[in-house]
Amino acid sequence: MFIRNAWYVVAWDFEVLADTVLERTVLGESIVVYRKADGEPVVMENRCCHRGAPLSLGRKEGDCIRCMYHGMKFDASGRCVEVPGQTLIPPKAKVRTYPVVQRTRWIWVWMGDPAHADPATIADTFSIQHPKWRTKPGYKHFGANVLLICDNLLDFSHLAYVHEKTFGGSSAIAEVRHEVTKLDHGIRIVRKVPDTVPAPYHQRLGHFPGRVNRWFDYTLSVTGMFIMTAGVQSVDRAWDDPDGALVFHSCQALTPETADATHYFFSHANNFALDDATVTEASYQSVAAAFEEDMRMIQAQAKVLARDPDRPLVPIAADLALTQYRAMVVEALAAEIEARRNV
Amino acid sequence: MFIRNAWYVVAWDFEVLADTVLERTVLGESIVVYRKADGEPVVMENRCCHRGAPLSLGRKEGDCIRCMYHGMKFDASGRCVEVPGQTLIPPKAKVRTYPVVQRTRWIWVWMGDPAHADPATIADTFSIQHPKWRTKPGYKHFGANVLLICDNLLDFSHLAYVHEKTFGGSSAIAEVRHEVTKLDHGIRIVRKVPDTVPAPYHQRLGHFPGRVNRWFDYTLSVTGMFIMTAGVQSVDRAWDDPDGALVFHSCQALTPETADATHYFFSHANNFALDDATVTEASYQSVAAAFEEDMRMIQAQAKVLARDPDRPLVPIAADLALTQYRAMVVEALAAEIEARRNV
Amino acid sequence: MFIRNAWYVVAWDFEVLADTVLERTVLGESIVVYRKADGEPVVMENRCCHRGAPLSLGRKEGDCIRCMYHGMKFDASGRCVEVPGQTLIPPKAKVRTYPVVQRTRWIWVWMGDPAHADPATIADTFSIQHPKWRTKPGYKHFGANVLLICDNLLDFSHLAYVHEKTFGGSSAIAEVRHEVTKLDHGIRIVRKVPDTVPAPYHQRLGHFPGRVNRWFDYTLSVTGMFIMTAGVQSVDRAWDDPDGALVFHSCQALTPETADATHYFFSHANNFALDDATVTEASYQSVAAAFEEDMRMIQAQAKVLARDPDRPLVPIAADLALTQYRAMVVEALAAEIEARRNV
Repeated sequence: MFIRNAWYVVAWDFEVLADTVLERTVLGESIVVYRKADGEPVVMENRCCHRGAPLSLGRKEGDCIRCMYHGMKFDASGRCVEVPGQTLIPPKAKVRTYPVVQRTRWIWVWMGDPAHADPATIADTFSIQHPKWRTKPGYKHFGANVLLICDNLLDFSHLAYVHEKTFGGSSAIAEVRHEVTKLDHGIRIVRKVPDTVPAPYHQRLGHFPGRVNRWFDYTLSVTGMFIMTAGVQSVDRAWDDPDGALVFHSCQALTPETADATHYFFSHANNFALDDATVTEASYQSVAAAFEEDMRMIQAQAKVLARDPDRPLVPIAADLALTQYRAMVVEALAAEIEARRNV
Repeated sequence: MFIRNAWYVVAWDFEVLADTVLERTVLGESIVVYRKADGEPVVMENRCCHRGAPLSLGRKEGDCIRCMYHGMKFDASGRCVEVPGQTLIPPKAKVRTYPVVQRTRWIWVWMGDPAHADPATIADTFSIQHPKWRTKPGYKHFGANVLLICDNLLDFSHLAYVHEKTFGGSSAIAEVRHEVTKLDHGIRIVRKVPDTVPAPYHQRLGHFPGRVNRWFDYTLSVTGMFIMTAGVQSVDRAWDDPDGALVFHSCQALTPETADATHYFFSHANNFALDDATVTEASYQSVAAAFEEDMRMIQAQAKVLARDPDRPLVPIAADLALTQYRAMVVEALAAEIEARRNV
Repeated sequence: MFIRNAWYVVAWDFEVLADTVLERTVLGESIVVYRKADGEPVVMENRCCHRGAPLSLGRKEGDCIRCMYHGMKFDASGRCVEVPGQTLIPPKAKVRTYPVVQRTRWIWVWMGDPAHADPATIADTFSIQHPKWRTKPGYKHFGANVLLICDNLLDFSHLAYVHEKTFGGSSAIAEVRHEVTKLDHGIRIVRKVPDTVPAPYHQRLGHFPGRVNRWFDYTLSVTGMFIMTAGVQSVDRAWDDPDGALVFHSCQALTPETADATHYFFSHANNFALDDATVTEASYQSVAAAFEEDMRMIQAQAKVLARDPDRPLVPIAADLALTQYRAMVVEALAAEIEARRNV
């Protein structure tokens, strides 16, 4: 069960080129994504209404898609516009389409009630495409429920253990208490780690002479949208002194594929060394390596939990944010179900 | 659930040689096929009555088969004739056998009530072994329910899309209406496509100077036996003028393996260019390639339908034959269940 | 359902070195095995009590293990001794541990009520580590329920068929009747095969001039512990004449992994040709090859039985031991369930 009235990232822009018919499963539903002649993306259910053949095996024809089993043709609104061998088109011959928009380099789909699909509510992912920022598109497929990944993002104490050799560097991160703020549709977390050693990848990028201050400031929405600003600066300087600091803006979108798998789209942009592409590449490689570490742990955890899903867990102080977050998700789901009932 | 009182093809003759013990699953049951010393085929359930070991790991000994776990030996009627270390043979020690006959080069098994197993009802597959016809044995394993393959065979409009590059060549096939005739235990379909382009593989074999007439005349029995005569002739000549025509006789047997998989035995014989083996090989290759195209589409369709099996489909005019056919299958199944009840 | 109040072999000694954290599933439960600084083995459930992360991804720290997700640290008794970022340790923060001992080269775990875990009841596996015996550690993973393997061990008539080319050599083994004796917690079987041909591997090791006497004397406990002495001697000599005889002491431990899979630990020791390592290697290779033969047959049998688990089997005289044995297992299970109820 997922929150449906929300924008979810379905693809990077470059995954859907002029002739592509991309198949993807989102919230348990198989859909296809393609572009009209003018480049506008279209999202349609991946099932011909005639005999259930997948439209992902279909052929793009102008703004339309033709099912390549018996040749039925659908326009971008999902209406059947051609049935080979017959002139009358059955009025029920249509496939479902979904609201879709592209913002910066992400294609977003709305799987819920189209009446509520307001693009103004899409998260601001400016750093993915911005003259002052550099990034590289990232994607991972996690074999785990989205909430286990949210748990991970809501408690950075794991950096000291899961990411000891990449993001971490010291148990100091685990020992510092973070500030947790409830927002309307998500949670904000600020974690300041004073006077610590730089993470291995920060040291490679920043060449700090000694110890550093690190900080993270991020929000996670109830539908898995994670936006973070994070920085490292030498202890000799003010926390917000940009000179010599490493500052990152990270956009991460968790889109449930099914109850047991999640699409993880990410961009980890830097606003320093803009002319040095190797900095962005190195930063990307470190983030991708760290996400592998998360994936390995979370997938293993998912298997353990699946054996005995109702067995109690023992909470600790660091779980505050994830406990609050999970309560908010349950609330949002309940509200959506209630709203459907009242229609 | 399958119609059991019917002859199903279980194997090509060459799959069961003198010492072979072939395992195959038919209508969800695992069976073994072997030959007696005189070459007569035997079909037996693949389960020793003693401890359930598979007889497919057994050893042929004359007309008998010996289970190679604890050595029990069964004759061709399924009766146990030896228990190592004991002289008395338990009266219940027997395994089930099934009526079986070989016709032309196919071995047919009867999985239902043996009392009704009349070999006279076996379809005529003369072209598989005939001095005036040439063919090459074909087999494919489809990961889909048999009825989805029957649907495919009952609506050749798909040739224009699925087989665009092999059997098809033009959307004309989809646009022509076929004649559908209900038979006693199946459906006959005649489709005449006048003044069209030859299919790519017809052009390779027939070197037609220009446009052609094409025709298909076939029956599909309720138990998945497909027999077709099909032809192509230049538009300049009469439809039935054999001179320069390409005429094919096709025998295709769909044997359910399980509810989700089907054995597809096929032969696509030609009665022209009898001395040119490359013609038969080329024809076989084209058919095999086309069946790959069908398989890809049907298996994908099966996955889509399995997600939501009860969701309605939107019928079109071309579905007439498959709708009639599916009704006949349901009727035949119901009659068989009723007959079992009355025993 | 398994007998829990019993010692099961969980690993060979060399599988758990100083820094190893070994994951293994026993009786359907995932556990980890590691060693304290003094070498004593520890067995713990493979699930951190905090968020369910697997301790098999954890890190050994002295006698403790640290979960590498959020850093909780557990001592060898399963008690949590550190929660990063918090001084108070929740009283419920502990993971289950299991009684464990090492004997000769096997590590044994007790998955049942710790109050009953008496190491004095562990089977005597002296030949695994003894100056007068030579052996090589063996392990196989069987994709079948443990009882199907016990069946196999309780009727050596299968040697003539399954192991025709390795252990068998003649149907004489199947034709001889064995003596079956009920013990307190198992069954003893003695099978004497007089005046027969040597098994192929005996002939390779023993170079007998002609026919031989063979004998097997073994016990199988209700929890799958198999201990056997077996021998071969020329027919010209007394059965118990050690001169020129081949005598083996075999320890085989069947530990259920799940209802459908079994760990098979084995040692097949010889007490002759002590200075010739090739004899032990050859003997090991023959046993390992024979166990492959068993595995292939038993896994195939398991699949056949799984299709229709309730279908009756036809007993023969050779099934006496396995029938008695299965009754004892049911009795032991029932007693254990009854005992748990009375607590």
